[in-house]
Amino acid sequence: MLKIAMLSTGEEVLHGDIVDTNASWLSEVFFQQGFPLTKRSTVGDTFNGLVEELLMLSFNSEIVIVNGGLGPTSDDLSTEAAAVAAEVELELSPLWLDRLQQFFAARGLAMPESNRKQAMLPKGSVLIDNPIGTACGFKMLINDCVFYFTPGVPSEFKRMVSEQILPDLQRTYTNVEGLDCGRIYTFGTSESGLSDKLDKLHLPQGYQLGYRSYLPYIEVKLFGPKGDLDTRLKLMQIIHKLIETNVVSIDQPMNDYVGQLVAERKMSISLAERSTHGSIASWLHANHDAQNYCGHGWVLGGKVEVGVAEGDLLAETLALAGATKDKCATDIAIVSGRLIENTFAVSLATPEGEWGQVLTFNRRFSRQDQVTLITTVCSDMLRRYLSAKPIFVDYSSLKREKEMHVPRSVLG
Amino acid sequence: MLKIAMLSTGEEVLHGDIVDTNASWLSEVFFQQGFPLTKRSTVGDTFNGLVEELLMLSFNSEIVIVNGGLGPTSDDLSTEAAAVAAEVELELSPLWLDRLQQFFAARGLAMPESNRKQAMLPKGSVLIDNPIGTACGFKMLINDCVFYFTPGVPSEFKRMVSEQILPDLQRTYTNVEGLDCGRIYTFGTSESGLSDKLDKLHLPQGYQLGYRSYLPYIEVKLFGPKGDLDTRLKLMQIIHKLIETNVVSIDQPMNDYVGQLVAERKMSISLAERSTHGSIASWLHANHDAQNYCGHGWVLGGKVEVGVAEGDLLAETLALAGATKDKCATDIAIVSGRLIENTFAVSLATPEGEWGQVLTFNRRFSRQDQVTLITTVCSDMLRRYLSAKPIFVDYSSLKREKEMHVPRSVLG
Repeated sequence: MLKIAMLSTGEEVLHGDIVDTNASWLSEVFFQQGFPLTKRSTVGDTFNGLVEELLMLSFNSEIVIVNGGLGPTSDDLSTEAAAVAAEVELELSPLWLDRLQQFFAARGLAMPESNRKQAMLPKGSVLIDNPIGTACGFKMLINDCVFYFTPGVPSEFKRMVSEQILPDLQRTYTNVEGLDCGRIYTFGTSESGLSDKLDKLHLPQGYQLGYRSYLPYIEVKLFGPKGDLDTRLKLMQIIHKLIETNVVSIDQPMNDYVGQLVAERKMSISLAERSTHGSIASWLHANHDAQNYCGHGWVLGGKVEVGVAEGDLLAETLALAGATKDKCATDIAIVSGRLIENTFAVSLATPEGEWGQVLTFNRRFSRQDQVTLITTVCSDMLRRYLSAKPIFVDYSSLKREKEMHVPRSVLG
Repeated sequence: MLKIAMLSTGEEVLHGDIVDTNASWLSEVFFQQGFPLTKRSTVGDTFNGLVEELLMLSFNSEIVIVNGGLGPTSDDLSTEAAAVAAEVELELSPLWLDRLQQFFAARGLAMPESNRKQAMLPKGSVLIDNPIGTACGFKMLINDCVFYFTPGVPSEFKRMVSEQILPDLQRTYTNVEGLDCGRIYTFGTSESGLSDKLDKLHLPQGYQLGYRSYLPYIEVKLFGPKGDLDTRLKLMQIIHKLIETNVVSIDQPMNDYVGQLVAERKMSISLAERSTHGSIASWLHANHDAQNYCGHGWVLGGKVEVGVAEGDLLAETLALAGATKDKCATDIAIVSGRLIENTFAVSLATPEGEWGQVLTFNRRFSRQDQVTLITTVCSDMLRRYLSAKPIFVDYSSLKREKEMHVPRSVLG
């Protein structure tokens, strides 16, 4: 296997002041293209530290992607460090100097003297174009290891990697094949809960599973050889069947899928959000398809305003759903009821009846995470209703205390 | 300066499937305690890669914090790799085995055989207690470099670092002093805009500035010697003065500060969110102080429901603010008006009059980022009103197209 490393530079990345999104992006893209990273490292802006790390990586890797430190200021030391590590001089690239001058001229500006530095490249390096910024990249050897130097600005970095570095690698390593990836989004279970069910699966040669967790979802990823759609779809069906209770969408985020369902069914929705305070509304509006159907929401705070007295948590939340649906004259009403310590109620009113449940958090969550989870439970109830699935289901981090279904016939 | 590295382990971290929050947390805490990291690296779960990285770090660092790989499963290889790198055997820690057995017994379980592995430590290492999990940490030398091995679970990791590793370092390096940090939160400017103004500042010995950017804020951080409150406050005042237009709060997030203002002034607030769809409501409710005053919001979607005709963007948004305030009978109404391509309107109705402005995004932002920025502009108008500052101000990523102020006298 190729030994591929990424080196991120910069004090702000090193000290945790900015999250290194370039690194996680590159890791994912390279993995999927068949060039998994074997190592990532981060150093600050000290010249000696940078040279030392370049040397260490050159002895232990075949390919290194260096990110950052190509700007015009005195903190930007990557190019000089590269030259010192490779024991070569810097020399002017007339080509890039010309591009820099054009770049500024097009904006009606003279090129600041400090930017001239960006046209000085290590002797023997090959320039890599940056069509949208002043920092060009370059490719060079240090101790027989291939280094690609790239700018830190995420849009410039991503474009350079996608359009130039990956194709260059693919030209060199013609036998490396990328992977196709299918994704199943789940809610309400744990990674070990998923792997308990999926570990017994014998995947064909070349296929493997991965998990990606972030509140409120865990994505199950199926990687396999490019092109073999048949096998992939069959495997996706088998995986889906094994974890069906918790699957919220396939190959698209839950949000897009629910938006699609709402738009297909052309149902209008009103909201009363006593514990989520606008979070369900934001969630629904994040999807363009769903937007037109959610025009009539309220966000209710401290007081209930639709004539429902406070009392039993489940009863009051169910009554609020009915009242909201009536008052707003929508097809559906979604309600997040009061949140009392770790216990909350949610309910859904529809043309076919009403559903309400009271749930308790099993673990400690921050207030923000609680709101995210309540919002997701509400969205999941809506999804289940719209796809004619049972509304109540067990979520691993939530305990269901009570539930009630009032069919339409009873509502009269 | 001490050479301190952190090594994160695990395929999921390496391939970008989970964000390494332990690394950014450690970087920040160590920096503030006077032990800034000089390097961070990440490797996967391959045994040889792990041993190689431990050796490389041992030759180039004085202190290394290793995170992850101490669990009971076969992917957890850090302990074994440490033993191989240091050329020592593993030996059973009867102390930790006993603790493991107690841990499971307290939960009414027999200890699974696989957990026995967690009591096997490299010979000569010193156990570091983990009061809340099954993976103990340990301290050992590899080639004269001090290594601390820590569990990957964030709560266990943070507790072990704070309660044991940092105190251990402080006992060893008694001359290292931590830093105090003051924070100024800004909105509507760029990092270069801030540094242009602050670079000319001559800070006394031992003081330095740092920036931390994340939409929608940029934090300006002033680091200085512990204890010297006088100098720090004076410097904070000077910095504040230089960038005053963009400062939204000091030493507390904007959200907390605005919540405090709302609670102090005891003003009730209604909302109509035509472009933000609940985001302002969520924002205000995230603060406990503000919650009680924001009970009467609406989230309006596709249609305006308070009898205001659509037409001129500014006029319609201003009218909606007045109508929302009247209809909800609140002291203040905040409105995010329609967002048309890159242009949007926002307005504020108060007992003293109404303010509205139309703004255009200067750069391309994702839909989600647009909502965040509109929400922040609305919150900033509220903040400015509540602290008797001018309502309109220039934001660097936004162009103000139009503005209008209608004083109370005109409203009649």
